[in-house]
Amino acid sequence: MTAKTTLGIFGLGTVGTGVVTLLGDNPQFEIRAIAVRDRAKPRDIDLSSFEVTGDPFKLADDPKIEILVEVAGGVDPAYQVIKRAITNGKHIVTANKELIAKHGPELFDLANRHNVTIFFEAAVGGGIPLISTLHRGLQANRISRVAGIVNGTTNYILTKMEREQKSFAEALGEAQAAGYAEADPTDDVEGRDVAYKIAILSSLAFQAPIEVEKVYRQGITAISDLDIKLAAEFGYRIKMIGLAQPGVGDSGVSLDVRVHPMLVPRHHPLAGIEGVNNAIFIKGSAVGEIMLYGPGAGRFPTASAVVGDIINLASAIKLPDFARYFQLPISSQVSDIFPIGETTNAYYIRLDTEDSPGVIGNLGHAFGEHGVSLHSVLQKHVADDAATIVLLTHQVKEKQAQAALAEISAQPTTRQIGVVLRVLS
Amino acid sequence: MTAKTTLGIFGLGTVGTGVVTLLGDNPQFEIRAIAVRDRAKPRDIDLSSFEVTGDPFKLADDPKIEILVEVAGGVDPAYQVIKRAITNGKHIVTANKELIAKHGPELFDLANRHNVTIFFEAAVGGGIPLISTLHRGLQANRISRVAGIVNGTTNYILTKMEREQKSFAEALGEAQAAGYAEADPTDDVEGRDVAYKIAILSSLAFQAPIEVEKVYRQGITAISDLDIKLAAEFGYRIKMIGLAQPGVGDSGVSLDVRVHPMLVPRHHPLAGIEGVNNAIFIKGSAVGEIMLYGPGAGRFPTASAVVGDIINLASAIKLPDFARYFQLPISSQVSDIFPIGETTNAYYIRLDTEDSPGVIGNLGHAFGEHGVSLHSVLQKHVADDAATIVLLTHQVKEKQAQAALAEISAQPTTRQIGVVLRVLS
Repeated sequence: MTAKTTLGIFGLGTVGTGVVTLLGDNPQFEIRAIAVRDRAKPRDIDLSSFEVTGDPFKLADDPKIEILVEVAGGVDPAYQVIKRAITNGKHIVTANKELIAKHGPELFDLANRHNVTIFFEAAVGGGIPLISTLHRGLQANRISRVAGIVNGTTNYILTKMEREQKSFAEALGEAQAAGYAEADPTDDVEGRDVAYKIAILSSLAFQAPIEVEKVYRQGITAISDLDIKLAAEFGYRIKMIGLAQPGVGDSGVSLDVRVHPMLVPRHHPLAGIEGVNNAIFIKGSAVGEIMLYGPGAGRFPTASAVVGDIINLASAIKLPDFARYFQLPISSQVSDIFPIGETTNAYYIRLDTEDSPGVIGNLGHAFGEHGVSLHSVLQKHVADDAATIVLLTHQVKEKQAQAALAEISAQPTTRQIGVVLRVLS
Repeated sequence: MTAKTTLGIFGLGTVGTGVVTLLGDNPQFEIRAIAVRDRAKPRDIDLSSFEVTGDPFKLADDPKIEILVEVAGGVDPAYQVIKRAITNGKHIVTANKELIAKHGPELFDLANRHNVTIFFEAAVGGGIPLISTLHRGLQANRISRVAGIVNGTTNYILTKMEREQKSFAEALGEAQAAGYAEADPTDDVEGRDVAYKIAILSSLAFQAPIEVEKVYRQGITAISDLDIKLAAEFGYRIKMIGLAQPGVGDSGVSLDVRVHPMLVPRHHPLAGIEGVNNAIFIKGSAVGEIMLYGPGAGRFPTASAVVGDIINLASAIKLPDFARYFQLPISSQVSDIFPIGETTNAYYIRLDTEDSPGVIGNLGHAFGEHGVSLHSVLQKHVADDAATIVLLTHQVKEKQAQAALAEISAQPTTRQIGVVLRVLS
């Protein structure tokens, strides 16, 4: 009979409740204490057998706790609580994407100095074993791209829009009604959630952290059902993508990390991912292209990853000097982010224009002048004097495309630029 | 400057050459010796800087080798060489599916007793990190199903048949011409290769070995382009599947492990896997459904997994007493295989019959008598007096379906039973 591994659990929302349920009466573990924000709040589980506190720092200071499990979310107070726990020699299991994206390198460094370990499999992709795959599974590879559908809410909305010809607003409303979107959906639909996750994946794939606040983001709010229909006609599906790859054409250490909807070719593995599912596509120098797929959120998928981390950590703890085996090879030097203007993409552009003879000529002139070559042009008469024009360009530097669009925007025949989307190649 | 980890490499075919190339001049490793079957054979790589031997046992006996990397394949002499190496205290990295499927439990047990470790990520799914996912990524789950497309050759053939309306023979010929199928394709098209791989995945998912020779196998040679077309009309794609799940309705420890083509519903994640790619679908009690996808074979994808194992093992070796961290929780007690007759499936059945009024009545009578209920019946007039009838049944026990088919086979209006396929539900 080996001694039980002792846990302190900070946070008892959706994921925390799942964790306590999954641990159940697993004889390997003892939950020493649970810290919650509101002790009076009714819960799905019976807490009578646990010590419950309102002060998470008590967990960080309790010498009888070996592993602090942080499932509270947000930076404050998780950041301070975890730093205190590490300083007190505790190992950490966390599901906190925002915290790891913003303060990961500092926390990993602190953990290394205190010879403890931070596991965070649940921070990205719910129960999909991503972190361990990037850390341990692809060691023989130089990674050349990580591209993920890592936000279930936006994928649910885009799937609804495509399958049921809904508008963005209608699909968002249904996502909210189904519990897949928050009352304030900004973090999801504007790409902030994706930015945290791709920042974490990028730091593992390229072994250098980035500043997540500097990641370029474009949301999905301007996408119309017409865009989804026309993209399909061109052979694509529109997906919200977090992308990380080495910046091309830059001599220093620079990572092209960005978050925006993309037109994904119909036969690309990412094109088939529907509903609230997540998938992460990885391109490695030796392995080629692999993809990991599964539910990206939810109580039990996420708790599956948290409890998996707890079990792995508990078995590792029994080894002498094991912590360095799990040290992440992430440089402490922050990598520059490759400027969005320097990235090369093909573009899908939807414009509202006057329906007059000179329009296509004006557009062609502006694109030609800035070196943007067109792949397809599709004109749709929408009213007596109005047309919608959709263009697909060949690969070109973002700044050239933007310069052409600025010129087009100023043309008298242009009413408005509806949406500009990049194409995954 | 830490000491180099010393390797002996047994086998220098496609994968071995990839391994030596990927290790390149990695300063972490020293290849002490390479054992090959035929020293005179011309190779893609320069071997002048390596010690090359024809005797793999020399590697197993060399006290200066820490890790034996076995990429020779086959049971003989790999089995004896690896046993000797383990007894001599060496760690093992192997890509050998047949060896692990047939002798895994014995070798793991021997390794545990000698406090060494066997890594075999490359044995299933090429470069897709599968073994580590099942071993470490899903610890919090009870697995209820593993279903995989784990043979690139058969998936390539079935994809060709579907996309280009080729016959089995034509598609096989093209697979051979493209180097995706052997001159003797039996191991692939009859499911033996899949059986090795699903036996390994099953032992990890359910923590008990099975006897791979007892796994039920059905090949893909009887599948016609008509079957693929009709399956599509019913909403399915035909895929060669290795399946492992707990045997239902059985009180003892019994695993339902089998290899056969299946009708996969069009929206199931496995339905979209095309060409030589592999994918493994896993259903866990907490995580739900996840899938891992990628190239299942080939020089560099497989070498990616082998070298990944080598790198992980080399970093683990530096820890005191690390081997038990990697011990697989596989029971030494062999699990019974759930009898195929007791499994429950829906069936796709194609029959050649006389084109006479009583035929459907005869069929209906035979199915009804054995409790087989029909979901769809499709009759196709093929010649003056001949018809092809395709039936889709509801879920029923295999032995009932087989009893009905035996009766139908004996009916005077039946010319032959063309193919019987199971449906993935």
